[in-house]
Amino acid sequence: MDFDLTNGIAVLDRTPHTFRAMLGGLSPAWTDATEGPETWSPYVIMGHLIHGERTDWIPRARIILAQGADRRFTPYDRFAQFHESQGKSLAELLDEFARLRAENLTTLDGWQLTERELALEGEHPEFGPVTLRQLLATWVAHDLGHIAQTTRVMAKQYREAVGPWRAYLPVLDR
Amino acid sequence: MDFDLTNGIAVLDRTPHTFRAMLGGLSPAWTDATEGPETWSPYVIMGHLIHGERTDWIPRARIILAQGADRRFTPYDRFAQFHESQGKSLAELLDEFARLRAENLTTLDGWQLTERELALEGEHPEFGPVTLRQLLATWVAHDLGHIAQTTRVMAKQYREAVGPWRAYLPVLDR
Repeated sequence: MDFDLTNGIAVLDRTPHTFRAMLGGLSPAWTDATEGPETWSPYVIMGHLIHGERTDWIPRARIILAQGADRRFTPYDRFAQFHESQGKSLAELLDEFARLRAENLTTLDGWQLTERELALEGEHPEFGPVTLRQLLATWVAHDLGHIAQTTRVMAKQYREAVGPWRAYLPVLDR
Repeated sequence: MDFDLTNGIAVLDRTPHTFRAMLGGLSPAWTDATEGPETWSPYVIMGHLIHGERTDWIPRARIILAQGADRRFTPYDRFAQFHESQGKSLAELLDEFARLRAENLTTLDGWQLTERELALEGEHPEFGPVTLRQLLATWVAHDLGHIAQTTRVMAKQYREAVGPWRAYLPVLDR
């Protein structure tokens, strides 16, 4: 499936609602659970998504659209949420993510991107040249991957509790 | 994490809202997409979840609670949705799932299950003896696994569109 703005934005727009439906009001027994040491809880994942809204997707799109001399992206800090989320409740993170995502989609919509602009390139610090189209497709797939991760982390909390059904639930051992 | 009714029901109660937030109003380009031949689309997954509400979780719990001479469960039909969903829109499936889940949670709540009852056993056609507690934990983990599956199926549609970022998105090759 090729990336197109309408279908891509349809997913980006739904993600905050999906996280709120999944996690809003849920016990920390679920939202602070992890897959083991050095893995992320749903709470940590929400902070990571917020950091992406602030520093990754739209700022990188701006670098591409500006087509300046230096089109190199700032490397993404995958651990920023461990200090940025400090002192915030999950409810606050869900609200903050929804607000930032809405603002970013208003920005994206305002650009009225053309096919020519979607083909413009920036420079990824590791991959080299990448297009705006690839960046926006990655934004969508990144959302979906973290929804999958969130439910996998939660499901694994019942790895023992399901007894023999574990054999039928591949998500518990992924 | 041990299964307990409060935390388990909290997830079961949220699942229809999560699916509605993720899929409601989305293009068939997403909701009919699969991971390849013989794999399931989000639309097929919704039909599978509906079939579970009708024939699996609560009916099996009733067999366990009755403690009759024959406590053997009817085998689950993993393909029922291919005829049962025929002619139904995704919006209808989302509504039907939400209605059935609400009814089933009302039934579950009405039972006011005790620890003694949660330890009662039924007979799984393949695994042999399983407890009501294991059945209910499996209901929760099964929901979470299918949310993960749904977003994985959707994410994979952009496997090529993300270009070199594929290397950072393990969900695309799972």
